[in-house]
Amino acid sequence: MSVTAVCPGSFDPVTYGHLDVVRRVAARFDRVVIACLRNAGKQPLLDADERVALLETVVADLPNVEVAAFDGLLVDFCRERGIDTIVKGLRAVSDFDYELQMAQMNTALGSVETLFLPASPIYSFLSSSLVREVARFGGDITEFVPPVVAEHLARRPPTVPPP
Amino acid sequence: MSVTAVCPGSFDPVTYGHLDVVRRVAARFDRVVIACLRNAGKQPLLDADERVALLETVVADLPNVEVAAFDGLLVDFCRERGIDTIVKGLRAVSDFDYELQMAQMNTALGSVETLFLPASPIYSFLSSSLVREVARFGGDITEFVPPVVAEHLARRPPTVPPP
Amino acid sequence: MSVTAVCPGSFDPVTYGHLDVVRRVAARFDRVVIACLRNAGKQPLLDADERVALLETVVADLPNVEVAAFDGLLVDFCRERGIDTIVKGLRAVSDFDYELQMAQMNTALGSVETLFLPASPIYSFLSSSLVREVARFGGDITEFVPPVVAEHLARRPPTVPPP
Amino acid sequence: MSVTAVCPGSFDPVTYGHLDVVRRVAARFDRVVIACLRNAGKQPLLDADERVALLETVVADLPNVEVAAFDGLLVDFCRERGIDTIVKGLRAVSDFDYELQMAQMNTALGSVETLFLPASPIYSFLSSSLVREVARFGGDITEFVPPVVAEHLARRPPTVPPP
Amino acid sequence: MSVTAVCPGSFDPVTYGHLDVVRRVAARFDRVVIACLRNAGKQPLLDADERVALLETVVADLPNVEVAAFDGLLVDFCRERGIDTIVKGLRAVSDFDYELQMAQMNTALGSVETLFLPASPIYSFLSSSLVREVARFGGDITEFVPPVVAEHLARRPPTVPPP
Amino acid sequence: MSVTAVCPGSFDPVTYGHLDVVRRVAARFDRVVIACLRNAGKQPLLDADERVALLETVVADLPNVEVAAFDGLLVDFCRERGIDTIVKGLRAVSDFDYELQMAQMNTALGSVETLFLPASPIYSFLSSSLVREVARFGGDITEFVPPVVAEHLARRPPTVPPP
Repeated sequence: MSVTAVCPGSFDPVTYGHLDVVRRVAARFDRVVIACLRNAGKQPLLDADERVALLETVVADLPNVEVAAFDGLLVDFCRERGIDTIVKGLRAVSDFDYELQMAQMNTALGSVETLFLPASPIYSFLSSSLVREVARFGGDITEFVPPVVAEHLARRPPTVPPP
Repeated sequence: MSVTAVCPGSFDPVTYGHLDVVRRVAARFDRVVIACLRNAGKQPLLDADERVALLETVVADLPNVEVAAFDGLLVDFCRERGIDTIVKGLRAVSDFDYELQMAQMNTALGSVETLFLPASPIYSFLSSSLVREVARFGGDITEFVPPVVAEHLARRPPTVPPP
Repeated sequence: MSVTAVCPGSFDPVTYGHLDVVRRVAARFDRVVIACLRNAGKQPLLDADERVALLETVVADLPNVEVAAFDGLLVDFCRERGIDTIVKGLRAVSDFDYELQMAQMNTALGSVETLFLPASPIYSFLSSSLVREVARFGGDITEFVPPVVAEHLARRPPTVPPP
Repeated sequence: MSVTAVCPGSFDPVTYGHLDVVRRVAARFDRVVIACLRNAGKQPLLDADERVALLETVVADLPNVEVAAFDGLLVDFCRERGIDTIVKGLRAVSDFDYELQMAQMNTALGSVETLFLPASPIYSFLSSSLVREVARFGGDITEFVPPVVAEHLARRPPTVPPP
Repeated sequence: MSVTAVCPGSFDPVTYGHLDVVRRVAARFDRVVIACLRNAGKQPLLDADERVALLETVVADLPNVEVAAFDGLLVDFCRERGIDTIVKGLRAVSDFDYELQMAQMNTALGSVETLFLPASPIYSFLSSSLVREVARFGGDITEFVPPVVAEHLARRPPTVPPP
Repeated sequence: MSVTAVCPGSFDPVTYGHLDVVRRVAARFDRVVIACLRNAGKQPLLDADERVALLETVVADLPNVEVAAFDGLLVDFCRERGIDTIVKGLRAVSDFDYELQMAQMNTALGSVETLFLPASPIYSFLSSSLVREVARFGGDITEFVPPVVAEHLARRPPTVPPP
């Protein structure tokens, strides 16, 4: 049986937590497609092309992982590619209820199943939104994201001007 | 004892989940007033008049159920009508904490009690916000909302243009 | 519409928190039947007859409230009495998941609905199990239970002997 | 890549909820080993051999599913069979915290990963412990377990004698 | 050992719940610095200077409590003052997951520890966001905030005009 | 202000997670009293004297930490020593609700406050009950407990006999 898993997200920016999940999924499934949602919310730190380019760089050493951008419904993305398995990292209980509803909705919409992989304990507190907040104020994010991401962000001016 | 229950919400749009709760409340209380909040958040799919009209259509067969729109505080709506009982559907644990705070605040503000009715399992994943997202991308929502709602939404152009 | 509500529990012992819920239910429903589960777990503080007698004493001033003991399934208790509405107090989120499963199971077993009433904030931390633990060590429980319950317990020797 | 998934549990008794999870896992993995914990807690309804025999009967039509009993640590069971993937159904948020700790402990103990598959909404309230309680009082469990399980339990006397 | 605790928040507006936490922290730590986040989200009720002035008024009787406004990261605020202990009130389980992630992120960023103090039961439902909503519609908030805050808000016109 | 904090628990056995919390509390409070509950539940792995002796060994290098055993109510333990501050580690959301109730009960019983310190991420999955289960089956616990604890347990026969 050859199974492809979709790992969806906004990846604004990709963190060591995302990368850890992708590596563990890539070790258990034949092929992994990282589905990067183009529309990343109201105040994205990075635009979609930057997010995809950084993802491609950080998974370049994983031969069975590829990156794709998408708009619209994740089930449509899956259906177009003939994929019926989503795998998501889960960090905390408070994520779970929403993710459960999304998963059941996606099954109702398109017969797509979602499997959840718990975050590794050392990354359990790491979210893109917290990293964005730290980056916005010029804080040090080198512990949270791969070097190429930290460097990319460092080249951008902080969004909050010094007083 | 004749008890009227208020079922509040934004109903943007009304789903089979809402309808299920209203029917079950209508079977236990003398009268049910569906209180439709006019201001349904930042990006409503339907305006208040559309939401009220659809509600009225889908509960037309329930003789002890009526629909009213409201602005402002729910406790003021209740006080003006001499109602002291709110009944809300509850889908998930993550809803509960916020709903509990609202309920206790409403008791403090206006001696109004809130009773919670658990969602039926088959509707436990169904939320207006997920339905809105599916509808925005032109997905199929006929399993989630009554036909009159699906038809109403189908007559509107999707808010996201095809690429 | 005349609706009877069942308030089930072990009531080992009945606390001010239980009493608060019963009073609020009695103000909204025509009749309330407190269903006291005979088998109250492994190490009950009070036997079933004591628990029923204390319940009857503390609700004596509420004309539409009665007390009954039961064994077995709550849905059978309801069915025998022609009651289809259970009302339970809910103190905390952690209670909710189990209560939700019980409620949905009871609907599947016997078409009985469960409505949840949030605990009043001042009683939100009060549980029979914590009261039992305090009573076992001879602690002061007069803030947590009606006087007749505190007196009844004071007449019993503490279950943990002094060292 | 050929991946075997272990689905562990006590299965006291196996329910339609378990069966639904096993079928969905069997559709995505090459081989599924149902790992039935021999020691099913303090008051098991069925002994280990009965539980295994019922499991074998209800998955007989699934060619890539097998049943094994085990004692001790799940990671030892996995290690002895060269399996490094556990898949568990998850019904509710309240299960999640404990399951997350177990999953992270199992990764620490034996490099075994746990993936979680959400229960289908119609089975979200279904647990073996609630089924056991219903069965103990002679209630009707035919909606919750496969016919062979219901028949097996019906042939046993209820554990609670009629009054 | 002389320990200073930082109590951070937006305080838009300061409530009896905040004040209760500050008093309890001030009774256990040598010095308390209330850190008022200038940027209080999208639709603040009060601007930063008003929030700081009201805070200073309501804690004027607590000699070891001072108020400071801050922008940017809380860990930078702490580092600049040589403080390594944050104390936050915690009202509900649903707050906890996010607060836990923030706490662990702050430890990773700046070796700052966060201690959590449970809200007193009578204030457990009280949040600034609910108070803001009540105030916006001209509701009575005198039970929820100190008199000076209620008076300050009463002098402002309600943000929602009468119909 | 000189503040003593009580860190209560069963410590059956003490883990690296406990030790991490004690060290962090000891760095912020003048004195720490570890309060070891003698009665550690139904099937303790270690008796109270063993648990206290191991605790004393593993905190020997912390000059402001002492160990005491206690029976009965924690508030009585605190009252007898004139201590009014409890500090507890908190690993997961599911612990929080019960701990919150205990904390509020203890405040009601004896004016004792409880502060919560989040577990460090790397210990967030570590509980004495999981360690006991691993130890019972002869699993390797050296990553989870200090060497002296692992050695003490290794000298005891596993409680589950080989088949």
